[in-house]
Amino acid sequence: MEVKTRAPGKIILSGEHAVVHGSTAVASSIDLYTFVSLRIATPSDDQDSLKLHLKDMALEFSWPISRIREAFPESATVLSSMPTSCSMESARAIAALVEELNIPEANFGLAPGISAFLWLYSSIQGYKPATVVVSSELPLGSGLGSSAAFCVALAAALLAFTDSVLVDVNHQGWLSFGVKDLDLVNKWAFEGEKMLHGKPSGIDNTVSTYGNIISFKSGNLTHMKSTMSLKMLITNTKVGRNTKALVAGVSERMLRHSDAMAFVFSAVDSISKELTAIIQSPTPDELSVTEKEAKIEELMEMNQGLLQSMGVSHATIETVLRTTLKYKLSSKLTGAGGGGCVLTLLPTLLSGTVVDKVIAELESCGFQCFTAGVGGKGVEISFVVPS
Amino acid sequence: MEVKTRAPGKIILSGEHAVVHGSTAVASSIDLYTFVSLRIATPSDDQDSLKLHLKDMALEFSWPISRIREAFPESATVLSSMPTSCSMESARAIAALVEELNIPEANFGLAPGISAFLWLYSSIQGYKPATVVVSSELPLGSGLGSSAAFCVALAAALLAFTDSVLVDVNHQGWLSFGVKDLDLVNKWAFEGEKMLHGKPSGIDNTVSTYGNIISFKSGNLTHMKSTMSLKMLITNTKVGRNTKALVAGVSERMLRHSDAMAFVFSAVDSISKELTAIIQSPTPDELSVTEKEAKIEELMEMNQGLLQSMGVSHATIETVLRTTLKYKLSSKLTGAGGGGCVLTLLPTLLSGTVVDKVIAELESCGFQCFTAGVGGKGVEISFVVPS
Repeated sequence: MEVKTRAPGKIILSGEHAVVHGSTAVASSIDLYTFVSLRIATPSDDQDSLKLHLKDMALEFSWPISRIREAFPESATVLSSMPTSCSMESARAIAALVEELNIPEANFGLAPGISAFLWLYSSIQGYKPATVVVSSELPLGSGLGSSAAFCVALAAALLAFTDSVLVDVNHQGWLSFGVKDLDLVNKWAFEGEKMLHGKPSGIDNTVSTYGNIISFKSGNLTHMKSTMSLKMLITNTKVGRNTKALVAGVSERMLRHSDAMAFVFSAVDSISKELTAIIQSPTPDELSVTEKEAKIEELMEMNQGLLQSMGVSHATIETVLRTTLKYKLSSKLTGAGGGGCVLTLLPTLLSGTVVDKVIAELESCGFQCFTAGVGGKGVEISFVVPS
Repeated sequence: MEVKTRAPGKIILSGEHAVVHGSTAVASSIDLYTFVSLRIATPSDDQDSLKLHLKDMALEFSWPISRIREAFPESATVLSSMPTSCSMESARAIAALVEELNIPEANFGLAPGISAFLWLYSSIQGYKPATVVVSSELPLGSGLGSSAAFCVALAAALLAFTDSVLVDVNHQGWLSFGVKDLDLVNKWAFEGEKMLHGKPSGIDNTVSTYGNIISFKSGNLTHMKSTMSLKMLITNTKVGRNTKALVAGVSERMLRHSDAMAFVFSAVDSISKELTAIIQSPTPDELSVTEKEAKIEELMEMNQGLLQSMGVSHATIETVLRTTLKYKLSSKLTGAGGGGCVLTLLPTLLSGTVVDKVIAELESCGFQCFTAGVGGKGVEISFVVPS
């Protein structure tokens, strides 16, 4: 049997950085996905290896099943219904397995992802020979939650072959999971994220798993459903950033100017609250959508100004802002800042010609553009009919 | 006898716009001046006219003394020690006098300034024939207080020929006025400002009169003296702006997003308070100056972000910010925004070569640059020794 899963990326609509200091933030899924297809070997297949094919990078890795068995002796006792964290022994075994791969230097950054793969695979599927193919519409390491989407899609695919989740194998097309199953997927994905990020917030995997829009404050998450079909232009500046250093920079500024910064964070909190009110309010007519979009644009502009006052903007971000402003479009950075991605609201009534022009101009600056719907479904599964 | 006066321009160091909503703002004089020289006709001079020479524009205007006498019959009864507002009759007479001038179309903007001149002259000096020459280092209508500096320098020169102020005519070089005399100059200058701006805040003429640094909040002014010799690069974007529309835009945004905007204004208030504490604190050593400058730079960056969240920035302002940031210099708009001028702190230890480079790059964008010391003296007078 073969299954294919897809898990969405995420954007931060408001509140990045301020959330670290107690403000509300709002995150949303986007309809750009990471796809995982998993084929557990049938008797006619190769029974001796676990294969990982990273399609976008044209990289293939393979491990003899005997090595996996040797590396994870305790996997035999792990229950797929009981997510656990990677032990020190397993971490060491994984490090050894990854080292043996001789990953090309340009792809060293993939090592944590491969580690997460080995951990999730051996924990949920044990020592079964299989082929896993991964591809993604999300740029890596740009704050759009590509690693969480990978962990979620992978965990969902792996769990689909266990008794821990219930899915209708005869369903055609993309199928959602039940809430309990999503909870399990999310927990395993979070364990994978830990291997990738050390101390992840859990927001990325949660948004990717459940989809829609989530507001979070002081560790508490609130799921909500948008009544609007917002569309964003996402511009990847391709400037890598050091999230930890950016977060630390804001905290230092907070120590130096505590009164002013406390008000800055409170302003962001108000913006997030207003945003959640707008996107959940009923929409009676077309005019009202336009008005709501105008309000959201203004909130984005305000949030961007506040992020600038926190010191996390970047010259490339400013270039995107300036370019989109020429077309009277509102933008804000999303995620850590210091590069990364910028969101630009694409209002419902905006002509496609304008969108094409903005994208052409941004791409001529060397940026990468995506358009994405906001607040769609979370992880889904599809059963590949044997041909 | 001939006197020459000079009155400084001003910058807003922090708090523009937010001050309208109850936050503290901080304004400072700069060592860029408007100069007025006044020569009351001696028996050997032309006894029949009042002449105004605007040197920078190479414009000269002249009125027969008989027309002045006719236009302002009540001037004979005005006391120079008792500043009064322009009556409706006088305003009408002034309008007629200005109309007769046939001002070149390109200089129509000068009409309010000429009106203020006629009002102050006839009120303080009555019908004496004289020649007034005006020149300025301040760009007109760019938010650097050029009109207030003109009114202050003019009022000071006119009052020097009355018994209402006490000045030592034998003093050589620039001479300051006593506090009581400054109060009188300031009041008359404010009457002139009213003719230029309708409802001026009084900040510009106050800063130009007394010099130094002034914080203001809800109409209350606090004079202070800086312990630092701050130097600013002032970049005039040359983009004219509609101050009223910008102020109204912020108020509308306040109505739409009252919670968030209230926090934004409070953040600005904290920034202004911190700034006044820094610039008044004693400076023991060189290192400390550098640290203070770093703090001021950070406050400027924060204030700029907050101004952007109020929606009063402009593409040209962003260009200045981006350019100065390349040299690791911090900037903020000053005044109304939407164009106008941008401040960039020039730290004490910054090399002149870097300053030259920044200026060259900004001027290549079509901007006009000035460097100015912050918080210097107010209006001063100098007696021209007859040759």
